[in-house]
Amino acid sequence: MSADDEAETLTAAHGAGRAEMRSFLSETVLERLGDPIADGVGLPALDDGAVLPDGDRSLVVTTDSHVVDPPVFPGGDLGRLGVAGTVNDLAAMGAVEPLTLTCGLVVEAGTPTDRIETILDSMAETAEECGVSVQTGDTKVLPPDDLDGIVLNTTGIGRIPRGEQLTSDGLSPGDRLLVTGPVGQHGIALLAAREGFDFETDLRSDVAPVNHLVAAAREAGTVTAATDPTRGGLATALTELAARSGVGLVAEDRAVPVSGATDSAAAVLGLDPKTVACEGRMVLGVAPEDAESVLDAVRATPGGEQAALIGDAVDDHTGRVVVDTGIGQRYLTEPSGQQLPRIC
Amino acid sequence: MSADDEAETLTAAHGAGRAEMRSFLSETVLERLGDPIADGVGLPALDDGAVLPDGDRSLVVTTDSHVVDPPVFPGGDLGRLGVAGTVNDLAAMGAVEPLTLTCGLVVEAGTPTDRIETILDSMAETAEECGVSVQTGDTKVLPPDDLDGIVLNTTGIGRIPRGEQLTSDGLSPGDRLLVTGPVGQHGIALLAAREGFDFETDLRSDVAPVNHLVAAAREAGTVTAATDPTRGGLATALTELAARSGVGLVAEDRAVPVSGATDSAAAVLGLDPKTVACEGRMVLGVAPEDAESVLDAVRATPGGEQAALIGDAVDDHTGRVVVDTGIGQRYLTEPSGQQLPRIC
Repeated sequence: MSADDEAETLTAAHGAGRAEMRSFLSETVLERLGDPIADGVGLPALDDGAVLPDGDRSLVVTTDSHVVDPPVFPGGDLGRLGVAGTVNDLAAMGAVEPLTLTCGLVVEAGTPTDRIETILDSMAETAEECGVSVQTGDTKVLPPDDLDGIVLNTTGIGRIPRGEQLTSDGLSPGDRLLVTGPVGQHGIALLAAREGFDFETDLRSDVAPVNHLVAAAREAGTVTAATDPTRGGLATALTELAARSGVGLVAEDRAVPVSGATDSAAAVLGLDPKTVACEGRMVLGVAPEDAESVLDAVRATPGGEQAALIGDAVDDHTGRVVVDTGIGQRYLTEPSGQQLPRIC
Repeated sequence: MSADDEAETLTAAHGAGRAEMRSFLSETVLERLGDPIADGVGLPALDDGAVLPDGDRSLVVTTDSHVVDPPVFPGGDLGRLGVAGTVNDLAAMGAVEPLTLTCGLVVEAGTPTDRIETILDSMAETAEECGVSVQTGDTKVLPPDDLDGIVLNTTGIGRIPRGEQLTSDGLSPGDRLLVTGPVGQHGIALLAAREGFDFETDLRSDVAPVNHLVAAAREAGTVTAATDPTRGGLATALTELAARSGVGLVAEDRAVPVSGATDSAAAVLGLDPKTVACEGRMVLGVAPEDAESVLDAVRATPGGEQAALIGDAVDDHTGRVVVDTGIGQRYLTEPSGQQLPRIC
């Protein structure tokens, strides 16, 4: 077989949020789509959404397809995941008050109607938590041979005063890093449930909208960058913040909050909670002089009680993440490949 | 087995755009999602998109998941289908100049990268035809056991002066019905290709953006309603226009344009071209005094050369469609079930 016969194909790693996915996006997608947007944020930024200037305001738009399996899991379901994921992506771009949501459902024929009802109920409840509703949608049904389960696409639109977007490229040396709660719960809870492990009952996904935490943080001080640590978890979020902001990051390993249940289950599963998805957390960069007041404000807000400052942006190590374990420092190496298919 | 054990499930018919789908939407979806929008158009309207008033303008939003199989077909591909479908839904709501598009890809692992490249190239080209671009997106990769092929969600945003939306409930008795070109080509071309039939080479999908035809029509006269005849084809489009506008429609069977190639292939396949999807057509309601000038304007616009007036809104037969065959009249009965899975 000649080299010409070996067609390149997409693999699970291309959807896992890490290095392989970034190569695919920059080499295949950005070559074709995504004109830059003057004074805004387009596809080339590979951020959590787009920002389109419009007079003295900007529209913020984000989209996500959710394929989580099973669609109902400890602590949540596909409907809550879709709405929270989209609201959080809007919030990560600075749009803390979502304007509208869309719902694109693709369903395997034979799916019980009550399963769909559970998911729609959950979308409605989660949207109501955020003061938004689903206002347009589409449904397709595929034969069972063609699709296993459900694909839910949610797109969200928000609005901000022009120039007030949050992005992942805004960190300056000296900025502090804040995470709004314990990491890795969603991924570990999902995998544990899927593997049928009988862990403690408090091992539940963290899936939740956290736009109100971003709002509380910005009211209390200068937030310089934001991203939500979903695919690839905290490790990927920090890697992207460092690369896009062009700074080094030093993360204090022991400062990163991880719940006891997550930690135990992760050990059994052989996973690092810092490399698996959260669905109800945000990583923020904060101006150093405001770090304590922003931390206090987030902790005083429901859902932010366990927020923590976990590191700093620095002058050296440009584009890289240094993990300080307390007894030494090492560069963070993101795992490649995909640990957990259909986790979000 | 007791009645309680017989769980209801979703079937292919629930995604086919006809009566079963309308029941599913009104009984299952609208019970849960879709607050009405004051002075706008929300989910309860079950129209082609949502209209959200915003000062003296309105935002228009629409979403669609495309699952067409094969993803490259005579006359187009999944990428062109996604962009044209979304641009056309915006145009059907009156937003003839799309503002931005999103792209949510879900891909089967093992899909050749060049297949994805073809689809993305096509999205870019079709978007450029409409003066818009894709500005945010998301990619997920599923194992081959879980997905056959590709799911492409596209969401579009447009804007119109407040109150200038087109809807499918705007017909009044006396309005004329205009279709912008021959019907049924997409569905018939798809099925013929899939079945491996060796039809003439001019049997190609009509997939194309037609926002410019809606713009030309509105410049030439009063357009009172619009919808694009996709799932369920012209038959479903007319049924929905009649029901939502609360008028009767009389359609002249012999006035509906159907290409010779479509007609021959449909006969062999045992299908009626008026009941299968178009992906580059629009059905418009036009004020009677403007009907001829609107027809002339559409025909003078590239892509609209074969437009035709096909019927009228009438005082009686409220909510129903009467087909006038030239030798008699009968009520239109939509076929139930799904003729063509994964056609759009």
